[in-house]
Amino acid sequence: MTDQPQVLIGGRWRAADAPTGSFRAEDPTRAEAIGPAFPVSGATDVEAALVAASTVAAELAATSPERIADFLERYASAIEGDAETLVALAAAETALPAEPRLRSVELPRASGQLRQTARAVREHSWSDPVIDTASGLRAHRAPLGKPVLVFGPNNFPFAFNAIAGSDFASAIAARNPVIAKAHPSHPATSRRLAELAHEALLAADLPAAAVQMLYHFDNELGVRLAADPRLGAIGFTGSRAGGLALKAAADTAGVPIYAEMSSVNPVFLLPGALAEDAEALAATFFASCTMGSGQFCTNPGIVVVPQDAAGDAFVTRATRLFAEASPRSLFSRGVQDNLARAVQGLTTAGAQVLAGGDIGTGTGYRFQPTLLSVDGIDFVDDKGALQAEAFGPVSLLVRVDGDAAFAAVAKALEGNLTGTLYRAADGSDDALWGSIARHLRERVGRLIANRMPTGVAVSPAMNHGGPFPSTSNAGFTAVGMPAAIHRFTVLHSYDNVPDALLPAELRDHNAAGAQRRIDGRWTHADVGADA
Amino acid sequence: MTDQPQVLIGGRWRAADAPTGSFRAEDPTRAEAIGPAFPVSGATDVEAALVAASTVAAELAATSPERIADFLERYASAIEGDAETLVALAAAETALPAEPRLRSVELPRASGQLRQTARAVREHSWSDPVIDTASGLRAHRAPLGKPVLVFGPNNFPFAFNAIAGSDFASAIAARNPVIAKAHPSHPATSRRLAELAHEALLAADLPAAAVQMLYHFDNELGVRLAADPRLGAIGFTGSRAGGLALKAAADTAGVPIYAEMSSVNPVFLLPGALAEDAEALAATFFASCTMGSGQFCTNPGIVVVPQDAAGDAFVTRATRLFAEASPRSLFSRGVQDNLARAVQGLTTAGAQVLAGGDIGTGTGYRFQPTLLSVDGIDFVDDKGALQAEAFGPVSLLVRVDGDAAFAAVAKALEGNLTGTLYRAADGSDDALWGSIARHLRERVGRLIANRMPTGVAVSPAMNHGGPFPSTSNAGFTAVGMPAAIHRFTVLHSYDNVPDALLPAELRDHNAAGAQRRIDGRWTHADVGADA
Repeated sequence: MTDQPQVLIGGRWRAADAPTGSFRAEDPTRAEAIGPAFPVSGATDVEAALVAASTVAAELAATSPERIADFLERYASAIEGDAETLVALAAAETALPAEPRLRSVELPRASGQLRQTARAVREHSWSDPVIDTASGLRAHRAPLGKPVLVFGPNNFPFAFNAIAGSDFASAIAARNPVIAKAHPSHPATSRRLAELAHEALLAADLPAAAVQMLYHFDNELGVRLAADPRLGAIGFTGSRAGGLALKAAADTAGVPIYAEMSSVNPVFLLPGALAEDAEALAATFFASCTMGSGQFCTNPGIVVVPQDAAGDAFVTRATRLFAEASPRSLFSRGVQDNLARAVQGLTTAGAQVLAGGDIGTGTGYRFQPTLLSVDGIDFVDDKGALQAEAFGPVSLLVRVDGDAAFAAVAKALEGNLTGTLYRAADGSDDALWGSIARHLRERVGRLIANRMPTGVAVSPAMNHGGPFPSTSNAGFTAVGMPAAIHRFTVLHSYDNVPDALLPAELRDHNAAGAQRRIDGRWTHADVGADA
Repeated sequence: MTDQPQVLIGGRWRAADAPTGSFRAEDPTRAEAIGPAFPVSGATDVEAALVAASTVAAELAATSPERIADFLERYASAIEGDAETLVALAAAETALPAEPRLRSVELPRASGQLRQTARAVREHSWSDPVIDTASGLRAHRAPLGKPVLVFGPNNFPFAFNAIAGSDFASAIAARNPVIAKAHPSHPATSRRLAELAHEALLAADLPAAAVQMLYHFDNELGVRLAADPRLGAIGFTGSRAGGLALKAAADTAGVPIYAEMSSVNPVFLLPGALAEDAEALAATFFASCTMGSGQFCTNPGIVVVPQDAAGDAFVTRATRLFAEASPRSLFSRGVQDNLARAVQGLTTAGAQVLAGGDIGTGTGYRFQPTLLSVDGIDFVDDKGALQAEAFGPVSLLVRVDGDAAFAAVAKALEGNLTGTLYRAADGSDDALWGSIARHLRERVGRLIANRMPTGVAVSPAMNHGGPFPSTSNAGFTAVGMPAAIHRFTVLHSYDNVPDALLPAELRDHNAAGAQRRIDGRWTHADVGADA
């Protein structure tokens, strides 16, 4: 047991205390265990992590934004400096391509996100200071004063890692301690990131216990932890079943939970757009659906295609591309089994398999790029079963006859992260756009024109969120600064409090140069200064 | 049945359909029924209200902000113009003083709040438009696209009425239809307000079904409705038990609920402040605790007083004021019974009654102004029972010996709306302020210096919210524009959408002159204009 990888609790690496088991990562391409046996933490570790994080919450809340930003930037640089090691670990554990995906796309995205977060911290752009001189009231968004528990997903070993992704960065930006629960499909990657985070914390002179990292604990323990009122909030990215179980637990304790769960990301191909170049659209769609083996929250899982000649050409071309493609690696046996079940569920509900449909030949965890089709009327009739997420390189074509059928499909959709419409450049689709978007808009977080939904830019105008049950609350985004930080804050008002006893950000003298709303006007000026 | 007051559903007044019973208001000062028998709505009315509101959600979401603001201002003027009738109805149903409370304080506050909301609508200050030209992403806060269900409380017949208060105004400001569930203790007041709202809607040329109003329905039906996914959100002001039951239901359906529940609003009297004028402080405290018969969410229910000479002087004076006061009218038998039970609970937990303690002599629903006392050590030992809310003119003194005891009481507190510290003008209390505020700050929404917590200014820097269980989510306020509006919005992002297909607020040309964050800078300019 003593040479097991150590967990990070209370500012130091130490052996897991009373673990309930151990697990190893797997090479998904061979379905074989690799690397050391990592501990599955038990209640002792979880309690220790919660106590350690709680203990430094007040100190961290009182630290300077500059120190937080310094940490985020040091950590970003450390990740970039360690890219070769990180990419090698992640590639081995996830079977995602080292190039371009891990090295040129995801790793820079992760470090860039940390830097954007640092910028939001330096600019005070998340705390929305409001000063009302007439009433003597001043308010801003403040740290929770309690730890944030972050559950990382399997599909982004860097950019959504519990110890490096947007939830982590957002929670730390608001000066909250973090308890990171890594995903068990990439423990060595998570350990390396945690080492870098730990070193950056020390270098930035932040409390070492600001960050804890456990490799894994079982679901029952997770649910129990989620209901602990000592938590300030929870960030979760993963399955709908997992997210709903944690949400039910957190809700009983009044712990805010921001869960990003499942999404089929409907794509509507309008007739004019298809007529422009159906075959090119098919290629774009195929690339989006199979990139990363389709293991994205924003994978285009449903594509609505008219029953016309251009629609047929699209389907023919797409079917060929899917049929000719070799099986794609999946993260784990769990992902493979769930995907097989999901495809089975779609066919049971009446979808026809046009290409793929099973794991195909080869080694390791895998699935064939799979295209299914169903008539729009049947989709609406069995809308529950036919919009169940199939996490992997799988998409369901929904064939519709006429404009009303497009709108009927839009109305049948559950909450999703994204909804996409491809329209003709000449505007000829725009009346139809209106009749679909009217229903689609309220069912999605991000409405997209003429781009596939995969690819989530880290932008202040991004919404990586959507109506329940795609996420737990459509008012918040998991990506994009400063908005993502708001999830991990509370509102603090000060009433008649003397200047010297206010937090620096709300004092008359605007020492940090924050942007503040004073008597209704955004300004960088001191209170009382002329405009 | 046919001459029963009508309910407002789908834009018209009509008889309740299949009501489950009827009820009458009471004159609390005589405990006698007054006015007509109002219907208790059953499932048929509730379903009709939900369908009617849902049907106009899209139309209302697409209406212009100007029209919404026009409605809010017309409604405000109508309330002011109808003041004599409204005040007479509310005074009869609540026993609150017509003057100054109802006519000069609460009614202007309610109409002023509607006007502030109109201003926030005209200024687009709630929707936070963000434009990122580099990525082609644009985002803003948008209507829910579904109805908001508002439960009004018993204690503010105007300013928190389900059909006129902050929840109502916030929901309509974000262009959401409302289903108002009035409080059964003031049905005639609510009916009159609903008539004015209905007329203002028609005059402003808004969909008549934007507002429904039911006088009452039973708790079981309320819980079932709260779990209906056709709702966009719920606003609730009332008891902890009621709020938690609705929250549990709403949470299962992913319906965001903003529940303001209970709060004891601790007040810490620091030694220097007491030494300045203990007797004046006692009078201020007595007035705050008994105003409105103490039936406020921000009533000072706990006062922490040092065991020193000035503390003793405060207690002596306060005890005399409470003891000499006559019983105060309460809203209903329910309020009276709950208050008697709460005082019993405090004494069972070890508190001593210094003054009052029961209903006293007189007619109607009432309770004596009641002052209790407990030692700080005992308070911490039985902190659950001793900080249960006693809704009425009741307060518990907590006597503490030394600075550490002050902090220990602060640490023992649950989430509250407010926390108050009285400090000496010469700064001599400020070290102690720090050691208390360190714990108090994270347990309250609004931190107050040298003012009693009663009196909630309608200000953009107000936080009428607080940590669970005082409210359901410490990130939001129920009072203060534009922040209160955020509760009833979702985040919408647009990705690569052509200018003509964007909502007006996000187009290049800033026709409405909204304040927008373009590439990180707040501006009123068009996209592409030089700064």
